[in-house]
Amino acid sequence: MNFRIVAYFLGWILEVEAASMVIPMIISMALGESDVWPWFLILIVVIAPLGFFLTRKRLFRKGNFYIREGYAATGLGWLLLSSVGALPFFLSGRMPNYVDCLFETASGFTTTGSSVLSDIEALGKGLLFWRSFTHWLGGMGVLVLILAILPMNGGYHMQLMKAESPGPSVSKLVPRVMDTAKTLYLIYIAMTVLMILCYLISGMPLYDAVCIGFGTAGTGGFGVRNSGMADYSVGSQILITIFMYLFGVNFSFYYLLIRRKFRDAFKMEEVRVYVGIILVNILIVSLVTWRCSYQSEGYLYSLHHSAFTIGSMMSTTGFATVDFDTWPEIARLMMVLLMFTGACAGSTGGGLKISRLMLLFKEARKELHMLIHPQSIRPIKLEGKVVEHAVMRSASNYMIIYIMIFIIAFLIVSIDGYDFTTNFTAVAATVNNIGPGLGLVGPTQNFGMYSMRSKLVLTFCMLAGRLELLPMVMLLYPRTWTKHY
Amino acid sequence: MNFRIVAYFLGWILEVEAASMVIPMIISMALGESDVWPWFLILIVVIAPLGFFLTRKRLFRKGNFYIREGYAATGLGWLLLSSVGALPFFLSGRMPNYVDCLFETASGFTTTGSSVLSDIEALGKGLLFWRSFTHWLGGMGVLVLILAILPMNGGYHMQLMKAESPGPSVSKLVPRVMDTAKTLYLIYIAMTVLMILCYLISGMPLYDAVCIGFGTAGTGGFGVRNSGMADYSVGSQILITIFMYLFGVNFSFYYLLIRRKFRDAFKMEEVRVYVGIILVNILIVSLVTWRCSYQSEGYLYSLHHSAFTIGSMMSTTGFATVDFDTWPEIARLMMVLLMFTGACAGSTGGGLKISRLMLLFKEARKELHMLIHPQSIRPIKLEGKVVEHAVMRSASNYMIIYIMIFIIAFLIVSIDGYDFTTNFTAVAATVNNIGPGLGLVGPTQNFGMYSMRSKLVLTFCMLAGRLELLPMVMLLYPRTWTKHY
Repeated sequence: MNFRIVAYFLGWILEVEAASMVIPMIISMALGESDVWPWFLILIVVIAPLGFFLTRKRLFRKGNFYIREGYAATGLGWLLLSSVGALPFFLSGRMPNYVDCLFETASGFTTTGSSVLSDIEALGKGLLFWRSFTHWLGGMGVLVLILAILPMNGGYHMQLMKAESPGPSVSKLVPRVMDTAKTLYLIYIAMTVLMILCYLISGMPLYDAVCIGFGTAGTGGFGVRNSGMADYSVGSQILITIFMYLFGVNFSFYYLLIRRKFRDAFKMEEVRVYVGIILVNILIVSLVTWRCSYQSEGYLYSLHHSAFTIGSMMSTTGFATVDFDTWPEIARLMMVLLMFTGACAGSTGGGLKISRLMLLFKEARKELHMLIHPQSIRPIKLEGKVVEHAVMRSASNYMIIYIMIFIIAFLIVSIDGYDFTTNFTAVAATVNNIGPGLGLVGPTQNFGMYSMRSKLVLTFCMLAGRLELLPMVMLLYPRTWTKHY
Repeated sequence: MNFRIVAYFLGWILEVEAASMVIPMIISMALGESDVWPWFLILIVVIAPLGFFLTRKRLFRKGNFYIREGYAATGLGWLLLSSVGALPFFLSGRMPNYVDCLFETASGFTTTGSSVLSDIEALGKGLLFWRSFTHWLGGMGVLVLILAILPMNGGYHMQLMKAESPGPSVSKLVPRVMDTAKTLYLIYIAMTVLMILCYLISGMPLYDAVCIGFGTAGTGGFGVRNSGMADYSVGSQILITIFMYLFGVNFSFYYLLIRRKFRDAFKMEEVRVYVGIILVNILIVSLVTWRCSYQSEGYLYSLHHSAFTIGSMMSTTGFATVDFDTWPEIARLMMVLLMFTGACAGSTGGGLKISRLMLLFKEARKELHMLIHPQSIRPIKLEGKVVEHAVMRSASNYMIIYIMIFIIAFLIVSIDGYDFTTNFTAVAATVNNIGPGLGLVGPTQNFGMYSMRSKLVLTFCMLAGRLELLPMVMLLYPRTWTKHY
């Protein structure tokens, strides 16, 4: 392990975090939250020079930068990001327990949106802004941001980008990684600004529009009101629905649109499957909830809330306008399954990712085909390209490691004694970066009742889910820390 | 598809089934159950000649016998076995609904042990004997039995044996398949006889000892009393515990013992891991249930029932002495996880099989190792032998297909509206061939409340789980039925 390089990137993460705290500090100051803003100021004053010290020399030139350094920098970087980001909540005294603060902040950066708070408005607007802003930062990734602004040469950036980007494989949009990172962030910023404008036009107050905008863009799920999304107008809810779906799309799609390659964009297999799953789910769930839950409100009501909830689950945002925990069992289960499906690779969404599931599905179909035609050789293709054996293997291994983490977390969380459904969906909601689950962690509830032990385990799940497992798992693997290569 | 060969094997299955019905008919006749035994007689008189007709010419010599014929013969064979085996229950009028009868019989042959009946004693001793005997037949496999008694030459038997035997790979114990099948059945019969003798010595009545013996040997789980296993003496329960564990062991272990290769036997990796999992689970669960559920009864009581229940879940038998649905959440979850783990490959137990999970675990560990040492080449080994790439791939694909079947069944069963835990464990208990689950399908409950649709889906799950998925999945795959190769 080359610790110097890792330290260099950790330094940059501190710089980004210090810079990000400026706006919430100003908001907090303007509103006279005198127990909050001084702590933002103190933190900025402490961590910015610390970050500067670590990035002072371009240490990364000396020595090797391999996959494990990339993964360690990512895993440790996100731990640092969350631990430091939790401090404003803790130091202000508005959240007295540091583990709660850590859970809430990791939930923010990983764009999960699970909360331990029952009264979020008590945090005040400064801290709520910070809480929502972590979604936006975490959505596209902090290291991707650093890559976009840092002039670096060499192929090693790809390791960082791979470690932080959602999905089985990052396709370089443009030959240079820095330009890809820049392009991604430009699309991200443009879409966010457009979305906030739309929200404003629909009648949302500015503060809400910006914070909800961060939550939608990062597919996070933190709101700023105790009532969740139920208070906003139907028009606003429809806009949120649309933008949740849009941020679940592979960003390569938008890149192709910008480059006016419309035919290529609309031929994208993953995007087509994404749209197909959405339509089938909306059709079934709207009919089921109409017949069973919202007969008196009418089909349009049920269509509206089904579309919202499905968008929220599939993009792994986690906003809620209705309590889907009260829906019929089949609709509840479909929501749980959509949590696992997740959004497209290369989007800000979580879950297993559609392209990964497509690979596994194609592999299973090939197995059947080979039983019947043992001599046939039919390579697996995705987006028209033959999928390499290594990619297939890593998709299978991803599933194995995912299931192992899921089971271990499920076991530890079960020690608290809550029921099977609550624990299962709590782990599912955190490892897939959704937010709410069913039962005691349903949309109208929160994760506050869990023990510190469970909260730490679920925090690990959120980070592991956001970083595609390996950077977090590697931190626990002793061999990662040896000098030997 | 070579239908003639398939028909030939189906004929043999009818012959075996007709022969198996003789003893229950005699018992039923002796007890004067005049609504039951004539139907056994009629069935024997009808299906035996039908089977003879189908096996009359050695049709299988003409034409090809590939994997798909083997799998189709297995899948269709087990469907036939269950459909015909269900008739005595239905025709006697003691179970008025044919779907219930089919569920019960498939549950018997697949050694699941899930029941739709709340009052099993009402079936009468003839039908109860038949119900338990299906466990014994299904445990080692009907086609394996046919292979053991049928003089056939050529390598194609291996296809049948592969299709019916539990576990990722069948190791030929001896060079000729027929001899392997014979050896397996001889060990099976010897152990069953020894077990029944032990049960008798412990004070169990003869009828109970034989029926419970069939249930233990096949790792089935059907009992003959409404009280389950709770009525038998502690001594009998301890013997049942021991034999459940023994029938979960890979039969190669016993073969090695017989051949006096003690060192090789005790070096078997899978058996060691099996014992390790058992010991860890007994330790934790006995302590947890002692502290939370059985404080007044004392540690020995909790140790006894923990060992029984863990043996029952892990060997996938499904007997119950206590209602483990009332245990603390962590112990309940551990039972659910043991359902998935299952027993050793090459035993009569179900579940995912320990050696398959070991392969997947080793593959995941290799993935981590390769991240840290990208240049290293380290083959995966099991039982000291390098595992071929094809075996690894089929273990991964097994998991994918398993999860797909699980999800589809879970969705369909959820339409009935029962709760998440009940539905999840109902599918888990059937696809892993356990028997009881949690909630409404817990050890003191039964599957009777499910709709016909759900019962048919769960029947499919039982058959798919018993036959290692592919023979049943292939039946649904249109290309299986084409003439083309």
